[in-house]
Amino acid sequence: MNSNRYCVIMAGGIGSRFWPMSRQSCPKQFLDILGTGRSFIRHTYERFAKIIPNENFIVVTNRRYKQQVLEHIPELSEEQILCEPIGRNTAPCIAYAAYTLKQKNPNAEMIVSPADHLILNENEFIRVLESSLEFISKNSALMTIGITPTRPETGYGYIQRTTNDTISAVKCFTEKPNREMAQAFLDCGEFLWNSGIFIWRLADIIAAFEKYLPEHSALFGAIERKLGTEAEAEAIELVFSQCKSISIDYGVMEKADNVYVHSGDFGWSDVGTWGSVYQQSRKDRYANVLNGSTIQTYNTRNSLISLPKDKVAVVSGLKDYIIVDTDDVLMICPKDEEQNIKSFIEDVKYVTGDKHI
Amino acid sequence: MNSNRYCVIMAGGIGSRFWPMSRQSCPKQFLDILGTGRSFIRHTYERFAKIIPNENFIVVTNRRYKQQVLEHIPELSEEQILCEPIGRNTAPCIAYAAYTLKQKNPNAEMIVSPADHLILNENEFIRVLESSLEFISKNSALMTIGITPTRPETGYGYIQRTTNDTISAVKCFTEKPNREMAQAFLDCGEFLWNSGIFIWRLADIIAAFEKYLPEHSALFGAIERKLGTEAEAEAIELVFSQCKSISIDYGVMEKADNVYVHSGDFGWSDVGTWGSVYQQSRKDRYANVLNGSTIQTYNTRNSLISLPKDKVAVVSGLKDYIIVDTDDVLMICPKDEEQNIKSFIEDVKYVTGDKHI
Repeated sequence: MNSNRYCVIMAGGIGSRFWPMSRQSCPKQFLDILGTGRSFIRHTYERFAKIIPNENFIVVTNRRYKQQVLEHIPELSEEQILCEPIGRNTAPCIAYAAYTLKQKNPNAEMIVSPADHLILNENEFIRVLESSLEFISKNSALMTIGITPTRPETGYGYIQRTTNDTISAVKCFTEKPNREMAQAFLDCGEFLWNSGIFIWRLADIIAAFEKYLPEHSALFGAIERKLGTEAEAEAIELVFSQCKSISIDYGVMEKADNVYVHSGDFGWSDVGTWGSVYQQSRKDRYANVLNGSTIQTYNTRNSLISLPKDKVAVVSGLKDYIIVDTDDVLMICPKDEEQNIKSFIEDVKYVTGDKHI
Repeated sequence: MNSNRYCVIMAGGIGSRFWPMSRQSCPKQFLDILGTGRSFIRHTYERFAKIIPNENFIVVTNRRYKQQVLEHIPELSEEQILCEPIGRNTAPCIAYAAYTLKQKNPNAEMIVSPADHLILNENEFIRVLESSLEFISKNSALMTIGITPTRPETGYGYIQRTTNDTISAVKCFTEKPNREMAQAFLDCGEFLWNSGIFIWRLADIIAAFEKYLPEHSALFGAIERKLGTEAEAEAIELVFSQCKSISIDYGVMEKADNVYVHSGDFGWSDVGTWGSVYQQSRKDRYANVLNGSTIQTYNTRNSLISLPKDKVAVVSGLKDYIIVDTDDVLMICPKDEEQNIKSFIEDVKYVTGDKHI
C-alpha cells in the first residue's frame, strides 16, 4: 500500500439522536444500531484498511472515548488516537490531525471520514476513493465526495457542482433544504448529498487553513513541534480552549477556490436518525424493523422496535412508532416526532441528572 | 379474639391477567401492583388479623408458592399453609381447608377469602364481617358478601337477593352479564356483586359438601384422619388427582337453600385486570397512571405505565394504552385489548418456552 496515504477518522460525536441507545458514555460510533455484528467505527476502519496501512490511521476523538476506540480497533496503537479535550466541530479536529501529520510526513495524502456512516457497496466506495486520490495527487484540490441523491432528502446538506462530470468543481455548498427545495435539487441534477468525506494532500489543507482559518492555523502552527511529544496534551488543551468552533465546510470548503466533488453512488447513509435506521433496515411483512430476539407484534405496522439481548416484547396496536428499550431507559415515540429526542433528553436530565444520558 | 373463628385465604391463583408483571413463579397475590408498599396477600392477612388470631389462619395455595406465602406472612407457621398439588377451583380448595379444620375444631366458624382483592374501607369491611359472623352463629346459613354495585360492571358475577335488607336470602347467582344486562341489574336494585368472600359455620359447609358435592365430600372424608399428619401430602395428592374441578358457587352456593348475602359497601375491587388497576389508581393531570420513578409523558393520555425500579421511560403520543415493562418483558397494548393478554402469553410461550411466562 502507498505509505503516503493516511486515513483520519473523526469519532468525537456524542450521538444524542440515538438516545436512549446511544449515551454520552457510549455514542453511536461504538454501537451496532443496525445489528450487523460490528460497530460503526469498526466498519469504518475495516473499509479503509483495504487501502490504508494500519500505521497510517489516525482517529480523532474526545479523550473520554480513547479506550473505547482502542477496544474497537485494537490494530491501532495508542499514539494514533488524538484526543480532543472538548468538541470544536470538524475544522479544529481536522487541523489537529493535519498538523500532527505534518510532523510525520509532509508528503501525506489524507482521507478524512466520519466514524459512523453506512456504506453498503464497499468496492464501489474504494473505487471512488482511488479515483479521488489519483485526482488530488495530480491537482492541488480539496476534494469531497458527493452522493448521487435518490430522494428529496431534507436531512442532508447538498453540494452544487458546475458540471455533471464524475469529478467537478464545486459551485456551492447548501445547508439542509426544505421539502420543496430538496425536490428541486433532485430534479435539477446539479446537486449531490454532502457526505462529509474529504480527500486532499496535506500541503493543500494546511495552505487552506493558513488562508481561510488563519487563527486556527496560527494556534496549531504554534504548537506543532509539541505534537507527538509529552507536551502535546497540555498544548492541545490550551489550543482547543482558544480556538473557535467551526465546521470544515463553513470554514474552508465554502470559501476555497480549489474545491472539487467526486460523485459517488455506493449505498451511503449517514444513519443520522432512527428514521434512517428504519429506512436502512430489513423490514418484516408488516414493514416493521425488529431488533431483538423475541418481538411479537399484533396490529403493528411501519415501526422500529429495538430491545436489549434476551428481552421479550409484545407490542399491539402501534403504527409508525419508534420503540427503543435499553436496560435503564424505555422510549416510545411516533416516528415523525423523533426530532423531539433532544428535548426528551433535556427533560430526563432535569429529573435524573446525567445518570441516564 | 374469638378462638373459634378461622380465616381461610385462598391463594392458589397464577394471575396470568397481569402478565408480564405476574408470572407463574410470582402471581398476583404476591405482587404490589397498585404500589401500596405491600403485596395483596399481605394486605389480606393484615385486614383479617384485626379479628382473627394468628394461629387461626389457613392459607391454601399451590405447593410451589408455599415458601412465598411464608415470606409474605412470616407470622404463620408452616402447617398453616395447605398445599394443593394442582388447582381444582374453589370447591376442593375450601373442602381441603374445611376437613382440615374439622380435625382441629369442630365448632369452627370460617371466613373464606381470596388473597388478591382490594378493600379500601377496612373498618366498614370488619363491621360487615362481624355482622355476618353474628348471623351465622345464630343461623345455619351459608353466607356470602355482596357488594353494592356502583356501575354496570360486566367483569363480575352478580347475586340476586330476595329482599333489600342488609342480610337477605339469595334468589340466584348469575354469571358475568353483558352490558345491557349489567345496566338492568344496576337499575333494578336487587343485584349485588359477588365478592367471593364467604362466612359459615364449619358444620354447615361440611353438611353442604355432603349434600351437594358428595363425591368431593367422600374423597376428603376418606382421608380426614391423615390431615395434619405425615401422610397428608400423599393423601391429598391422590384426592386432588381424583376430584372434579368445580367452583364453590356452582357446586354449593347455587344449589343450597340456606344461602344468604350480606350487602356491603367498603370500596371493594377484585383488581382482576390492568383496566381495574387503572381505575383504582391515582391519575395525574393527563389521566395517566404512572408506576415508576421517572416517567416522562408527552401527548399521552388515559394510559397506565408500569416500570421496574430505577428505570426511566419517555412515552410520546399514546392514548388509552397499557405499558408494562419488567426486567425481561415489555408489553405495549391498547387498554381495550387487554383480554388478548392470554393469547400474547401463548404466543410468547410458543417461541421461548416457559422462560418468560
